Amino acid sequence: MKSTAKAAAHPNIAFIKYWGNKDHDLRIPANGSLSMNLEGLETQTTVSFDTSLDQDQLILNGEPGGEEALDRVSSLLDRVRELAEIETRAQVLSENNFPTGTGIASSASAFAALTLSAVTALGLCLTEKELSQLARTGSGSASRSIPGGFVEWQAGTDHDSSFAKTIAPPEHWALVDFIVLVSQEHKKTGSSQGHRIADTSPFQEVRVADTERRLDICRKAVLEKDFQTFAGIVELDSNMMHSVMMTSDPPLYYWQSGTLEIMAAVQSWRSEGLPVCFTIDAGPNLHLICPAQASEAVKRKLSALVNVKSVLTCTPGGPARLLEPEITGV
Amino acid sequence: MKSTAKAAAHPNIAFIKYWGNKDHDLRIPANGSLSMNLEGLETQTTVSFDTSLDQDQLILNGEPGGEEALDRVSSLLDRVRELAEIETRAQVLSENNFPTGTGIASSASAFAALTLSAVTALGLCLTEKELSQLARTGSGSASRSIPGGFVEWQAGTDHDSSFAKTIAPPEHWALVDFIVLVSQEHKKTGSSQGHRIADTSPFQEVRVADTERRLDICRKAVLEKDFQTFAGIVELDSNMMHSVMMTSDPPLYYWQSGTLEIMAAVQSWRSEGLPVCFTIDAGPNLHLICPAQASEAVKRKLSALVNVKSVLTCTPGGPARLLEPEITGV
Repeated sequence: MKSTAKAAAHPNIAFIKYWGNKDHDLRIPANGSLSMNLEGLETQTTVSFDTSLDQDQLILNGEPGGEEALDRVSSLLDRVRELAEIETRAQVLSENNFPTGTGIASSASAFAALTLSAVTALGLCLTEKELSQLARTGSGSASRSIPGGFVEWQAGTDHDSSFAKTIAPPEHWALVDFIVLVSQEHKKTGSSQGHRIADTSPFQEVRVADTERRLDICRKAVLEKDFQTFAGIVELDSNMMHSVMMTSDPPLYYWQSGTLEIMAAVQSWRSEGLPVCFTIDAGPNLHLICPAQASEAVKRKLSALVNVKSVLTCTPGGPARLLEPEITGV
Repeated sequence: MKSTAKAAAHPNIAFIKYWGNKDHDLRIPANGSLSMNLEGLETQTTVSFDTSLDQDQLILNGEPGGEEALDRVSSLLDRVRELAEIETRAQVLSENNFPTGTGIASSASAFAALTLSAVTALGLCLTEKELSQLARTGSGSASRSIPGGFVEWQAGTDHDSSFAKTIAPPEHWALVDFIVLVSQEHKKTGSSQGHRIADTSPFQEVRVADTERRLDICRKAVLEKDFQTFAGIVELDSNMMHSVMMTSDPPLYYWQSGTLEIMAAVQSWRSEGLPVCFTIDAGPNLHLICPAQASEAVKRKLSALVNVKSVLTCTPGGPARLLEPEITGV
């Protein structure tokens, strides 16, 4: 017997970032975060529970997934199997239309799509909140790729209170996110490992304590489409996270020389009146955010920079969605 | 009547850095700091109090000093005049044997040399502690260029309690400081202005509160010549200061792409067993510190990097010293 479903989800870019956990196993974050889903990039995942399998299988972009990735996928599937009260193993086929492991949070879209497809394949009927909670256990930021548009993940204190929800739909604010790739190297220290050492930075505690303030400013700026305020708080939050990273033990350096050059360029463009700001995840690449009406100008500026390897263009994206429900019974 | 003295002082490199003030006018620092004087670089300053002058004059490296520099020099001279109970104006001739305004703290050596020469010219007999206090009012880090060798500046709470003293003489530890110039541009935001906005960073308070811990580790590492511990705390402290800078309002970015490349190179060299670490002041240039026995290897590594514009080589330096006492009466 076989039971299959296919789902898609977008990665997201955090404006107020997630770094560090209260509970590593459940991925209860140290602080709340706020993000935008990225239309233009997505992971499509097909999950087939199959009674003929004696273990889970993972195919990532056409290749067998590594042991570590498979373990992480199996852990998520175990939670879904527990809910469905079955033990059937599954085959997972996952495809990204964007490069993995370069600071574009592929694990967010991957675990959001996996969660939705696995749950659907087993005929479970979960709310968005429950899907977000479940996705969170696979990859924290995946909780934010379940709802659509502009999304806030409330940190919470336990599995039940930690989930994300939409604060504004994708069409609320026509922002463009240019993902500027300065390096396609696979990052040296993955986020999961980084979250574990966040507390070794003398700055993590105050970064966490200050989060409500930043969230309030950012949420208000998004709701009011106040780009100047938005730009200031987004860059501050990014710098605060990288400060924690660079002062942790061991220190984590994600910026490269190209990163810093583009950060400086963005500062200078904004000081000349172009509405654009940067934010940087756990990798060397930058997300440049601007209102749609400034996007042609930003693109022109970007094309003149030598350090830019390539640029991906995204707009606010919708929620994780089902592509193929083919439930044939387990 | 004319009364002249000439003094010399070295700049210093802080291992635990000074950033932010409790009192801006008196330059009572937010936190204590620890540094090494830099033999190989110095400022030589001649002060001539001259009853025929109706205002102070400043000649910096053969050129008339700007108004702002002159004001700062006059303020220091006013304090000295107050001590001597005279009002005679002075001509100040100051020469650096190194480029100014590129993150090599020229104001430290300048105000240390100015203090010693001015005080001597007026026949005042001050202790090292009093000279350090006085130099501090001209430029905070100048307090550390008065004593010799490895120096700790205790923050204190007022003029009397805030001064620097030697914790070990220059010959205690044969360190080499390679000052790696990646840019000779004059920095956009000077330190005095930067100190004023340090408190706008969410991280400054915890950086200050954590200083005693870092000072203890660094002081012990210097006294025990424990390079591994020294390297870790020096890089952490530098990153903590730059974190405060980059998260202040407005954010201050001193690192350039070349800075970041050399930071990464140093990390990688150390991980391969070469004892060397970096520290960066309020500018793009780096100080690479290593034990003398590793200096040839570090120099070879540096010569292979394309972003290095030039390198200055320093060793632990002595105290500010008198060159020409020519007191002829005021």
